[in-house]
Order: sequence, then structure tokens, then C-alpha cells
Amino acid sequence: MKPEISHRGYEMPSSPIRKLVGAARDAERRGTHVYRLNIGQPDVPTPPQALEALKHIDRKVLEYSPSEGIESLRVKMSEYYSRFGMDISSDEIIVTSGGSEAVLFAFMACLDPGDEIIIPEPAYANYMAFAISAGAVIKSVCADINDGFRLPPVEEFEALITPRTKGILICNPNNPTGYIYSEEELLKIADIVRRHNLFLFSDEVYREFCYTDTPFISAMSLPGIEENVVLIDSVSKRYNECGIRIGAIVTRHKELRANVMKFCQARLSPPLLGQIVAEASIDTPEEYMQYVYDEYFRRRDFLIKRLNEIPGVYSPMPMGAFYTVASLPVEDADHFCKWVLDEFSHNGHTVFMAPASGFYTSPGEGRNQVRLAYVHNIDYLAGALDTLEAALAEYNSKTQKA
Amino acid sequence: MKPEISHRGYEMPSSPIRKLVGAARDAERRGTHVYRLNIGQPDVPTPPQALEALKHIDRKVLEYSPSEGIESLRVKMSEYYSRFGMDISSDEIIVTSGGSEAVLFAFMACLDPGDEIIIPEPAYANYMAFAISAGAVIKSVCADINDGFRLPPVEEFEALITPRTKGILICNPNNPTGYIYSEEELLKIADIVRRHNLFLFSDEVYREFCYTDTPFISAMSLPGIEENVVLIDSVSKRYNECGIRIGAIVTRHKELRANVMKFCQARLSPPLLGQIVAEASIDTPEEYMQYVYDEYFRRRDFLIKRLNEIPGVYSPMPMGAFYTVASLPVEDADHFCKWVLDEFSHNGHTVFMAPASGFYTSPGEGRNQVRLAYVHNIDYLAGALDTLEAALAEYNSKTQKA
Repeated sequence: MKPEISHRGYEMPSSPIRKLVGAARDAERRGTHVYRLNIGQPDVPTPPQALEALKHIDRKVLEYSPSEGIESLRVKMSEYYSRFGMDISSDEIIVTSGGSEAVLFAFMACLDPGDEIIIPEPAYANYMAFAISAGAVIKSVCADINDGFRLPPVEEFEALITPRTKGILICNPNNPTGYIYSEEELLKIADIVRRHNLFLFSDEVYREFCYTDTPFISAMSLPGIEENVVLIDSVSKRYNECGIRIGAIVTRHKELRANVMKFCQARLSPPLLGQIVAEASIDTPEEYMQYVYDEYFRRRDFLIKRLNEIPGVYSPMPMGAFYTVASLPVEDADHFCKWVLDEFSHNGHTVFMAPASGFYTSPGEGRNQVRLAYVHNIDYLAGALDTLEAALAEYNSKTQKA
Repeated sequence: MKPEISHRGYEMPSSPIRKLVGAARDAERRGTHVYRLNIGQPDVPTPPQALEALKHIDRKVLEYSPSEGIESLRVKMSEYYSRFGMDISSDEIIVTSGGSEAVLFAFMACLDPGDEIIIPEPAYANYMAFAISAGAVIKSVCADINDGFRLPPVEEFEALITPRTKGILICNPNNPTGYIYSEEELLKIADIVRRHNLFLFSDEVYREFCYTDTPFISAMSLPGIEENVVLIDSVSKRYNECGIRIGAIVTRHKELRANVMKFCQARLSPPLLGQIVAEASIDTPEEYMQYVYDEYFRRRDFLIKRLNEIPGVYSPMPMGAFYTVASLPVEDADHFCKWVLDEFSHNGHTVFMAPASGFYTSPGEGRNQVRLAYVHNIDYLAGALDTLEAALAEYNSKTQKA
């Protein structure tokens, strides 16, 4: 006899990005090379300034940092935001252990069990995990792949609002779709947020990665909802340092900051070493940022063109971030993605994709879709897509025979 | 108008260890030197091996690590546990962002809203914060300063058990009291745990710091409750590297591990750099560990002797860890601790203590007690205690006048 785990534990979804990790490892153990398009772990090197800062840490004690983060880092982040026309003081920034902890603490401090938030889908899967952690309920409006995943009509948001609705969450530029919300769309969201006095959680960790002429507009810049916005941020993607676990909650809502700080004090402090690296990263020269940008731009163009050449595959052109959601000529992408890892190889290769069903809460949505990350170089992407094309052909010929 | 924060946010306690940080900073701004006895941030240097490992990180990308932690670190931790006679495989270890995240995830994966856990008090204040985060309810049994804070009679635990009781939590060696549970006491707890099929959360982060002949016994070694025990661990105190944020959840309960992993996957990974440092730390030579041990031993003896020389002050002799809870000749230690920072100085010095009320959930308990950390050298402690003695004299002479 042993004690029972929590119902919450049972309800927690497995990460759609990581749940096939075991199958991928098994494939590698069999000697198959696995192209990893499942996770946003870029192959781009971390900026040399950041790595250099590590080697020059001359502290004798690796001690706790302040619960809100090291002051010099928060001052630097404030300067960074000003480059984007965002007027944010260092006091309005609370450093977290990655954007993940920022989402968790924002939900914990804003939402009670049974409170509702509205999220356009497909959405970053871990929002659901953090909502379950906080006991909150996600209501979703569904973006359509055939519309390029643009914002669903605001009437659909309005229709979901109940007395328990506490907020709307957007990810902009969007993970997993790459969509960037237009000014018109953001003003419509701001209008709902203001009229219903909601929180607007805005995850903007892909701010630097906008490949279109649509200017990126931060929720922090939207008029009339200054104290409603809770910005989620992270240095992970921007400087290719996902492992250092440094993110932030930014809000002008003073009482909310005081409450978030209680959760921060309970966990004592964000990682010290990561903060030192993050602070050095903010000084990364423009050439590095431009190199990374150009690289993703080329990868995106290659990936989307090649995807749409594969019979039955469709991907809209993502405007930002480094993912796309593509539809495949299969009924059940969960089954297909697992099959590819378990049973398929093409010249010794297979491919690891994230089934998109895990990015939807609406049952049945996205069943034929996958999320692909273009965080590897073009040769790698070419190999991965050749493998995907061969896998689809074999899978569908088998299915039709069966 | 702005949206309301969560009730949970209001319920969250401010850290008793950190809530006076602002008052301490204000004192420093006025030019007063502040002796910090509030927080377990040792002045002992981090092991040279650990700092050296930092300088030799030759990675080009600071990427995500596995959600469960780097395998080589988990293997090394398994070896470390074997030195204490604990038979733990690397698969039974999940690396977390500090012991704090270990407590949070253990609660999240074991406890549902309304579930109850029993904790002997005084207790590490952040357990309460994590219980509130998980919606769980703490029921407490009160240890008595006059008994040296030994385990309260097991009948008191039994009396609190309801159908909602899911676990018992102990911290051993204890923060804040320094008490180490005897084999007899642990077997009594194990008996309750087994009979009621409970989880036993055992926080053993001070395992290395036992100053008496009472041998340290891990809950992982208790017979008959192998799958009930959830060990909370951290490298922070052991190697004086609180800032790297590396801890662990260890359990033989396989379903529980699978569930904890869902929370781990949602936050992607523990800090990469901290894991590299932690792995190097486990090779810290015995001389370093002995030096640290001897140092704390001397500090403890000095602190307790000097405390008990101050009129009206009483502290039992802590058996382990590096804290003590002392009673002061004041009615309200919260008021006294704030007054000392706000209004008192003695030859340009003041002293920062953690009021013990925050380590109790039972109202009114510990009102005249404070927690003191002996993480500074003896000269520092001597200065701090002279200041405390002067502060008590002035505070009580003022109170009597008023």
C-alpha cells in the first residue's frame, strides 16, 4: 500500500513537446539519428559576452540573490525595454526562474481555484499546466490555420466571459503559430480587458523575432490598461541561453507586484549564475542579434517553402518566433509522431515533432497538426523534411493497406 | 480601476526571514551597520572545486537540461547518498530549482486543495507558503522550547488525523530549532505514517550538520514506509552555494515520480549552470567539510552560551543545522525586531533577527521568540549579541517607562 498522488497530478498534461522524449531516446539507442524539430532549443551559440562573464565570476560565495532579482540586472532590463519604447522602471521588474516561473507566479498571484482565463488556441502547452497548478480554468477561442492563425473575432472572447473570468492571455509573437498580433487586434483585446477589468497576461519572449513589416507592439504600450497588463518575459530565446533559467514578470500593478513577491520570497531567489549571465547578455552587440535574426529568417523561408512542397502538408507563413504549426495528411498526428520515432527510419534518420493536439484544450482540435521549431540550420532542416516526406509516404501507404 | 489579485495572494504569508529586509536596508541607508542573523546565508566560502568548475565550462550553447536534471549529476547524487547508507538509484532522484521547488512540486503532486498535512512547529516558514500555493491545509503540533523542541507526543499527531490527512512533514535536522529526531521518535512517526497510509515529507538539507552523538537517520532508511517517503534535499547549505538553486525530490514511489515529472516538464528544466557546479561540489574533499563542520560547531557553542548570559534570554542547545530559536524578555518579538532595525543603534550597529511567530501557524505561539542563524564568524556573532543585549535593555526600559 502506498499513498495516492493528487488529482491535480493526474490532471496535469504531459508536455507535448517532451512526452515523446523516451521514444526519441529509444530510437537513438537503436542507432537511428533523430532530427529534433520538437523543442525550441536553438543550435545558435550563446553570445560570447555571456560565456565570458561566466569565466570572470570572482565571487567567493555563491550566495542567495534578492528575491526580486539582482538590482543591476533589473536596471539593465529597464534600459533594454526602453529600446522598444517601453517605459518600465527597474522597480516594475521581478526576476524569475525562467519565463515558466513567471507564468506560474503570475497565475498564482492573480487567479484563484475556479477562476477563468481566455486563451486563443493553439497555445503554448505549458500555460495549461500552470493553470492546473493554480486551479484555474482555461477557456479557449480557436484560431484557424486557414486564416494564418490570426486573432479569432473578439465576439468569441466576449461570449466566454463569465463572473469568474479574470484574464486573457496572449503570446505575441506567438508560440506555436508564429503569428504577430496587429495594432488593430491588440486594441480590440485592450478594449475587452478594460471593459471587463481583466488581467492581460502577455508573453512576449519572442519580441526580437519579427520577420514582417508589422511592427511589434507590446501590451505594455496599450493605452488605458496600464495596470491590467502582466508581461511575461525571458532571456532564453533572445540570447540562446535557455538553460540559465532567467525570466521576468513586469507589471505596473503595484499590489500585484507585492503579491508576486510573496511567492518569490518563498522560493528565496532566482538563480544567481543565470542572472550574471543574463546581465552580460543584454550588452550583446547588434551584429550578433542581426546574425541570429537573418539566420532564423532564412530558416523560416526554407522550412515553409519545403513543407508546402510535401503533398498534403500545409503551413501558413509564420510572422515571428521560430515555430510553425503545419497540417499533415494524417488523421492523428499524435499517432504519426510516435510511429515515426518507434517504427520508421529513412537512411538511418527519423524526425521528432511535437503533436499539436497538446497545444489545444478543445477536444479534437489540431489533430492533424504538428508544431515544428526551426532552430536548426538549413542543412539540418533539409534532412529533417526529406525524412518527414518519406515518413508520410510510408505511413499513408501502410494505413491504406491496413 | 484595476483587476483584483487572488485571495491566495492575500493569504500568502510574507517571509518572516525576509519581510524586514526593507527596514534593514533603511537602517543601512542611515549609516547603521546591520548584523544579519535573520537568514541562513553562510559567510563560509563555496568549495574551490565548485568555483573552478564554473571557469571551465566550455559549452558554446547554454541549453536546456533534461527536466529531471542532468544524468551525471543524478548518478553522483546517488553515490553521495550511499555514503550515508542510503540506497537510492539515480532514477529515484529528480533535480529541482532548489529545495524550495522540491517542496512546491512535492506538495503539488501529492496534495489537492483541502488536503491536510501535519507539521511539528516551529517549522520552516516557507512550508506554509508552499501549502497555500497548493491549496493544502497545515495542521500543527507544537514543540516546546522548554523540552528543547523535541518531537511532541505522537498522540498529538494521531488526534489531528482526519480523512483529508495526506501526510506528515518533518525537517531533520530541524530548521529553525536545530533539533535532531532520535531513532525512537522516527520509528513512532513511521508507525503513524504506515498505519494511516500517509506521505512522509522529510526535509534533510542539513544532513551534514549534526553536532551530537545522536546519529542522523534518514527517513529513507525507515523500514516499512519505503514508498511513503518523499525526501526534500538541497546542495545549498552543504556546500555554501545557496544561490545556484539546486535541490532534489527523492522518492521510491514510482507513480509519484511520474507525476512530479509533469510539473518538472512544465517548467522545462532546472538551472544548467547550478547543476554543473553542484556536480563538482559533490567531490568536495573531506577537509573542507570538516573545516565547515568545526566552524559551525564553535559558532553554535559560542552563540548559545552568550545568548543564555543575556538576562531573560533562553535558548536550548541546538543539535544540528545552524539556527536556534531563542526566547527573549519581550512580549512581542515582531515588534521588537522591527524596532531594533527602525529605531535602535548601539555604537553604530543594529541587528536583524527573524521573529519566530512566522514559524508557527498556531496563533500566539512563539510570540516572544526569534530565530537566529549562526552563519557568521564568532567576532561577528559577538558584535551581534552585544548589540542584542543593549537593544533589549533599551527596549525594556522604554516599554516600562511608557
